[in-house]
Amino acid sequence: MQRCTGGPVNTDMINLSIDQVYDLSVDVLSRNGFSAPHTAAIAQTITAGQRDDCQSHGLYRLIVCVRTLQTGLVDPAALPVVTHPTPAVVQVDAQRAYSLLAFQEGLPHLAEKAKKNGIAVLAINNCFHFSALWPEVEAIAALGLAGIAMTPSHSWVAPAGGTRPVFGTNPLAFAWPRPGAFPYVFDFATSMVARGEIELHRRTGKPIPEGWAIDKYGQPTTDAAAGMDGAMTTFGSYKGSALSTMIELLAGPLIGDWTSMQSQAYDAGAGATPLHGELLIALDPQLLGRGMLTANTAAAEAMLDAISGQGARLPSERRFKARAKSEQEGVWVSRALYDEVRKLGKSDNL
Amino acid sequence: MQRCTGGPVNTDMINLSIDQVYDLSVDVLSRNGFSAPHTAAIAQTITAGQRDDCQSHGLYRLIVCVRTLQTGLVDPAALPVVTHPTPAVVQVDAQRAYSLLAFQEGLPHLAEKAKKNGIAVLAINNCFHFSALWPEVEAIAALGLAGIAMTPSHSWVAPAGGTRPVFGTNPLAFAWPRPGAFPYVFDFATSMVARGEIELHRRTGKPIPEGWAIDKYGQPTTDAAAGMDGAMTTFGSYKGSALSTMIELLAGPLIGDWTSMQSQAYDAGAGATPLHGELLIALDPQLLGRGMLTANTAAAEAMLDAISGQGARLPSERRFKARAKSEQEGVWVSRALYDEVRKLGKSDNL
Repeated sequence: MQRCTGGPVNTDMINLSIDQVYDLSVDVLSRNGFSAPHTAAIAQTITAGQRDDCQSHGLYRLIVCVRTLQTGLVDPAALPVVTHPTPAVVQVDAQRAYSLLAFQEGLPHLAEKAKKNGIAVLAINNCFHFSALWPEVEAIAALGLAGIAMTPSHSWVAPAGGTRPVFGTNPLAFAWPRPGAFPYVFDFATSMVARGEIELHRRTGKPIPEGWAIDKYGQPTTDAAAGMDGAMTTFGSYKGSALSTMIELLAGPLIGDWTSMQSQAYDAGAGATPLHGELLIALDPQLLGRGMLTANTAAAEAMLDAISGQGARLPSERRFKARAKSEQEGVWVSRALYDEVRKLGKSDNL
Repeated sequence: MQRCTGGPVNTDMINLSIDQVYDLSVDVLSRNGFSAPHTAAIAQTITAGQRDDCQSHGLYRLIVCVRTLQTGLVDPAALPVVTHPTPAVVQVDAQRAYSLLAFQEGLPHLAEKAKKNGIAVLAINNCFHFSALWPEVEAIAALGLAGIAMTPSHSWVAPAGGTRPVFGTNPLAFAWPRPGAFPYVFDFATSMVARGEIELHRRTGKPIPEGWAIDKYGQPTTDAAAGMDGAMTTFGSYKGSALSTMIELLAGPLIGDWTSMQSQAYDAGAGATPLHGELLIALDPQLLGRGMLTANTAAAEAMLDAISGQGARLPSERRFKARAKSEQEGVWVSRALYDEVRKLGKSDNL
C-alpha cells in the first residue's frame, strides 16, 4: 500500500551510508542550481526515502528534480512566505518552488497552533510537489500530534463510472504517535496504483492487470501505454472516487489552490512535476482527550495490537524494518542508478 | 455507495406526507419515553432519511430506537453538556443519550468557531449512535462550510490480511457547499458493505457475494450467518483498512472516547446500538481561500461538473432526486412497516 517500491537486490548493487546518500543528494541539487535551503530540505526527504527502501522516492527522484528544474517552471531559490490568516491556520506560499522547504517552515507554526487550539491547518500553496507525504505526517507525529496530509496532482484518474480523467493520484497520509515505537502511519494514493507502477510496466513492455486503467475510448485495457494515454482508475470503486473528490476540494479550492485539472492544464504537456497546494491538519490528543491521555493511549494501543497481534500488517512496517536495517548497514543502490545520479552532479569526489 | 437502501415500491405501499412521517415519529418516540428535545432531534433525522428514500434510516429506525431503549442502556432524556476546551474545539457530552440532540447543540458552536478560526472540531462523546452522517455534514455545508464526520461502531470488521474483527463499520462522511445546488456529499461505510446488507441476506436465506465477510475460522464465506458470526471485510483492501484504523483513532482515543472494540465489550451481547464518540471537523472556504472565494468556487464547480458531465454519478444524486420527489408527492412506506411502527406508538390518531 505504501507509495514506495522496494528495489531488487542484485549483484550490481553498491552500498552507501545514509550520510553518503545525503551528501550525494546535496551535491547534485546544489550543482544544478538549487539554493542551500532548498537543497537541504529536498536532500533530507530523498535520503529518508532511500533509507526506508522506497526506491521511487529515493535517489531516483534526483533525476526527476533536475529534469523538472530544466523545464524552467520550478523556482530553485524562492523563499517560502509564511502568513497567519487565523490563530489556527498557517499558510505558506511556496512561490513556485518545491514544497519541502515550505513544509519545513510551516511545521513549527502548525504544531504550535495545534497545541494551543487542539486542531490547526498548514496550507501550502503554489508548490511543485514530488514527494511522498509520510515524512511529513511522521514529523507531525514526532511532535506528539496526529497528522493528516493530502494533495491533488495532475488529472490522470477517472471517477468511478466515468471514462475521462479528472482526479490526480491524490494521496492521503495519516500518522498517529505511539509511545516508544514508530508512529502508526499510512500514505496511499487514491488511484488504484501509483502512476509509476503503470509507467514501469510500459517501459518493460509488460501488460497491466485489468482494473488499473482504461484507454482513451473509456474501455478497460491491459496495455500500459494505452492506460497512460487514457485514464487510471480509483481504488475501492465509488468510495475511493469519493475520497479522491474530497482531496481535490480540500487541498485545492478550499485553500485557494488548483485542482488536478488546473495543474494539468498549466503543465500543457511539459511533463513536469505537478504545481498545486497541500493541506495538512494536526490534532492534539492532549487537548482533545478529555484529560484521559493515558487511558486513551492505552485504548489506541490495544486496537493497534489487535491488528498486528492477529498477523495483519500495519501499513508502514516494511519501511520501518528497512529503516532499522539501513541505519545498521547503509543502503543498497543499483550501480546504474548511482552512475546516472553522479553524472547529474558532474562530480567525482564521492 | 450511500449508506441507505431504497425500498421496492409494490402494491402494498401507503403514501404519507413528510409532515405525517415526522408526526408519526414524534408520536412513537414520545410515547416510548423520549424527552421532548430528544424526540424532536431524532424525529427530524428519521424524517430526513425517509424523505430521501433511505429506508434503512427512515421509519424503520424507530423500531431499533425503541428496542435499544428497552435494553435500559440509553438515557431517553439526558441533556447534552457543552464545553469549550479551546477556541477551536467544542466538546459535547451526550451523557449516554442518543447523539442527535448533542449534534444539534454543538453545531452552532462548531460553525461559529470554524468561521473565526478557519477550522474547528465538534467532538461528541458518550453517545449512542444509530444515524447516518450525511444529515450532519449537509447541515454543516448549509452554513457555507466544508464538513467531515466519522464514527466507530461495534467491532464487526477484520483488518485487511487479518481474520478477526477489530474495526466498526466506521463511516466517513463529507460535504462541500455548492452555490445554488445541493452540496457535494458522500457518506460511506469503510466496511465492504453495510452490516444491514448482510443481515438482510441472512434473513432471506440468500448467500452473500464472496469478499463481504469471513467466518469465525477466518475463511472466506458466502453464508450470511457465518459471516455475521465471523467478521466483515473492509472496502478497498489495505487502503480501506488503513482508513478504518484512522477513524478508530480520531473518533475514539483522540477525543477521549471508545474504540469499536470497547463499545462491543460494553454491549456484552445485548445487541444494542453502539456507544462511542463522533468527530466532526468544519473548514471555512472563506478564511482558508486566500481571498479568492469566487475563483475557488468556480474551480470546484468545474471539477464536479467534469465528473457529472461525463455521466459519472455524484455520490448523493439518488437521495437528492428522492428528496425532490418526496417534497412533491410524499413518501411511500410498506403497510407492514407502517403498521409495525404505529403499534409502537399505541396510537390510532394518525
